Amino acid sequence: MDKVCLVVGAGAGIGGTVGARFATGGYHAVLCRRSDAKGLKRLVSDIEAAGGKATGRLLNIVEPETIESLIAEVEQDVGPIHTLVFNIGAQVGDRALSETSHKVFERSWRMATFGLFRAAQVVCPLMSGRGSGTILVTASTAAMRGNPGQHAHASAMAARRMLCQSLNAEFASQGVHIAHIVVDGTVDAPDTLGKMLGPERFAELRATKGAEDGLILPEQVAETYWHVAHQHRSAWTHELDLRAWSDQAWWNHQTATRI
Amino acid sequence: MDKVCLVVGAGAGIGGTVGARFATGGYHAVLCRRSDAKGLKRLVSDIEAAGGKATGRLLNIVEPETIESLIAEVEQDVGPIHTLVFNIGAQVGDRALSETSHKVFERSWRMATFGLFRAAQVVCPLMSGRGSGTILVTASTAAMRGNPGQHAHASAMAARRMLCQSLNAEFASQGVHIAHIVVDGTVDAPDTLGKMLGPERFAELRATKGAEDGLILPEQVAETYWHVAHQHRSAWTHELDLRAWSDQAWWNHQTATRI
Amino acid sequence: MDKVCLVVGAGAGIGGTVGARFATGGYHAVLCRRSDAKGLKRLVSDIEAAGGKATGRLLNIVEPETIESLIAEVEQDVGPIHTLVFNIGAQVGDRALSETSHKVFERSWRMATFGLFRAAQVVCPLMSGRGSGTILVTASTAAMRGNPGQHAHASAMAARRMLCQSLNAEFASQGVHIAHIVVDGTVDAPDTLGKMLGPERFAELRATKGAEDGLILPEQVAETYWHVAHQHRSAWTHELDLRAWSDQAWWNHQTATRI
Amino acid sequence: MDKVCLVVGAGAGIGGTVGARFATGGYHAVLCRRSDAKGLKRLVSDIEAAGGKATGRLLNIVEPETIESLIAEVEQDVGPIHTLVFNIGAQVGDRALSETSHKVFERSWRMATFGLFRAAQVVCPLMSGRGSGTILVTASTAAMRGNPGQHAHASAMAARRMLCQSLNAEFASQGVHIAHIVVDGTVDAPDTLGKMLGPERFAELRATKGAEDGLILPEQVAETYWHVAHQHRSAWTHELDLRAWSDQAWWNHQTATRI
Repeated sequence: MDKVCLVVGAGAGIGGTVGARFATGGYHAVLCRRSDAKGLKRLVSDIEAAGGKATGRLLNIVEPETIESLIAEVEQDVGPIHTLVFNIGAQVGDRALSETSHKVFERSWRMATFGLFRAAQVVCPLMSGRGSGTILVTASTAAMRGNPGQHAHASAMAARRMLCQSLNAEFASQGVHIAHIVVDGTVDAPDTLGKMLGPERFAELRATKGAEDGLILPEQVAETYWHVAHQHRSAWTHELDLRAWSDQAWWNHQTATRI
Repeated sequence: MDKVCLVVGAGAGIGGTVGARFATGGYHAVLCRRSDAKGLKRLVSDIEAAGGKATGRLLNIVEPETIESLIAEVEQDVGPIHTLVFNIGAQVGDRALSETSHKVFERSWRMATFGLFRAAQVVCPLMSGRGSGTILVTASTAAMRGNPGQHAHASAMAARRMLCQSLNAEFASQGVHIAHIVVDGTVDAPDTLGKMLGPERFAELRATKGAEDGLILPEQVAETYWHVAHQHRSAWTHELDLRAWSDQAWWNHQTATRI
Repeated sequence: MDKVCLVVGAGAGIGGTVGARFATGGYHAVLCRRSDAKGLKRLVSDIEAAGGKATGRLLNIVEPETIESLIAEVEQDVGPIHTLVFNIGAQVGDRALSETSHKVFERSWRMATFGLFRAAQVVCPLMSGRGSGTILVTASTAAMRGNPGQHAHASAMAARRMLCQSLNAEFASQGVHIAHIVVDGTVDAPDTLGKMLGPERFAELRATKGAEDGLILPEQVAETYWHVAHQHRSAWTHELDLRAWSDQAWWNHQTATRI
Repeated sequence: MDKVCLVVGAGAGIGGTVGARFATGGYHAVLCRRSDAKGLKRLVSDIEAAGGKATGRLLNIVEPETIESLIAEVEQDVGPIHTLVFNIGAQVGDRALSETSHKVFERSWRMATFGLFRAAQVVCPLMSGRGSGTILVTASTAAMRGNPGQHAHASAMAARRMLCQSLNAEFASQGVHIAHIVVDGTVDAPDTLGKMLGPERFAELRATKGAEDGLILPEQVAETYWHVAHQHRSAWTHELDLRAWSDQAWWNHQTATRI
């Protein structure tokens, strides 16, 4: 049996790259995402081409018994899940309240919050039984404060942050380490940012801001995920942030906006 | 038409008492709660006996089209809602993750978070159209940090806090004031604490801690709710806390617990 | 003997106005500030003209034994201090680190942090001995997060916030109520903002933003100070914020600044 | 010239151990502390015995021109400071307000806050000139909230946290990375905890809680310091926490203490 790193939300940005990093470190990376079988296959192939082990699975986490089944199967067929990377967001774009339908609001919560809750219910007892395990949760600044147009996003992300704190409060002392990682900035991610901006603007952004490391690089994020997942249990980090050197933190105002 | 204060979650503690305070101040108090028609009737009678106006309604907010209908009816039949007091919690007791069913977890969110979202979707445009209105949200320290056994509670309450911040970010500049009020301590509330402890222990607590104002008194909380609802728009409070003088704030540790 | 409200930092903005509000409510307002004897005299005369009691004192709080002596004298000659309003900031303008001299950095702390510490050391035992008393501290968003050019300001203000929390942790249970009030926005204050902008720009700001209540009005702030100082001890607020309806909270980004 | 890691506050706990970790990684560790020349010599010898480079210096940071001179000398004689580890606390024990003298209150600030400010004023321009450099600040939960008996400690630590945020806000975009690391628990540190408890109780604590990794191990803390100091500039952490697996986070209450 292999030591497994299970990535929920494995696109070509943070998710897939963290999976690849763990594969390099000797883990079997199980990558799952909702759609784009072709993109998923490429991630798996790239890991294998580099000499690592990987498996891909399409999975829609809002459907019942999806993540639960996957965890059970992985534990039985591939190996014990050492690290669960929960990399699903709840970003639905900036939407005024009137444009945020019940469905959108609920869906954000089902993905970002309830999805982690369901995964934790299955994986925490397994990890606890082994006395060790790590859950890394990719978060955003929406977990820290509400913003205009973020009714659905901010409430789902904040719910998840408090879920992480509650999980640590129950499971840390059983050997399960949950880390909430606020990624505060623009990630150099073709599958999300790239699609949002379109190829031309994305290329331009990479050539300008990106050329000076002003976009958050997934492979650098992955180094910190790896580090946190391997912290000795005498010194665990529960919460941390990540941002590019040239960006202001979310709590900084442009001076110009205040009088 | 009367100026209305609509209380969602009107028990004999904070909810009903805030309603009574607003009735004293000239508002028509519309009190709604899920159950206990008799208790609700008593709250209404008490207000009327004191010369105020009140209406009672049983309402299960997790059912679709309940709060929405109520707001529409109140606006049409009673008068414009000046203040909405959202006083529903998501407390389901301390529960380990394994004892927190999907249903419990979802229900907490449906009551505390989605309930406010649905109410806001209907009432904010009305208030915005009038250029004024207030939403007062009774919160707890679970909105600020997770604790053992609080997977459902903390995530729902934190989601709601960020929803409040997002609502302010969109609606404050349209004249709608949302205040998130963290009640950090034990409230002298017969309908919640009283039922939890049973008559004997509740009487004892009132006779000891309560005798020295160590329980949070709903009528005193109501004074602050009234004040916040009537702050001039040049000086609005978005977030505040309330606790009894003899209690430590949630962020204070007992020194003894740290080596 | 009169019931005293002592205002440290009594300019024509929040400080003097809060003093006047307490005088209206029957307190003897003792107003002190560092300079401008003429302006101070005017504040006192205005209160007296309105039928209230007031005393003015020039006082440089960074000098040793100043605030200490004043408190002792007031308690002996005027009456027991029921409310201390600590309204001194540490704003020294936006300064790069290289432009922030040792002297400036230390002075910010001496005014905002050490000044309150020294006042508290004298007044808390007196209030504790009487079993009641209130300290209202005017704070700013610098107490919550650092910003460019705010090395001195933010560190002094944050130090003070934690001092307030520590004071509550020790003295709340002795009947002394400390409230930390974050004023998040531009105050319509001739003595600070007015001098900073100059008469012309200040008049213009008042005629535009101010005309729509977009400047925080000191007399409205004073209503909330009054309310907090008179909260029943079963329901005390330790921390709250105040901002104009048309302003975004400090934690909100302009969407435009994030890609 | 060597690449330097300068540790301010280098005892046998986190400070000295981080220095040793950086020496293992090829840095010249410059260790300074206020007293105990013998202990300092031992730290240096141990590093040298392991094949690393180290220099020791006694230094009282509250004295003027001490840290400033040291930084200048190190830069000239040893090499460019790549990482500054600021490991001085402001812990003066639990002290009621009446037992916190002016001197104690000021000294806490001079050590923890003003000390870092002075160091930053000298080292930030050097790092900025090179376009790179890291400042790692060992913090405690006192930076996050006040507690009884922590008037001096909490205010100094919070001041420092906001200073770190302000430093990042100015210097991150110049290539200087400041990380504020909240160590939330009991560190297995002979020079601080050991002296506080005495040899017998310290040995017992190590044999019980420590035997199960319930004390925070300095060598594990050092791994995270190393990681953070070497994060790629596209993904920097500004704030993180560290605690032992078996400890509750500072924001968690013992359930028993409520109600």
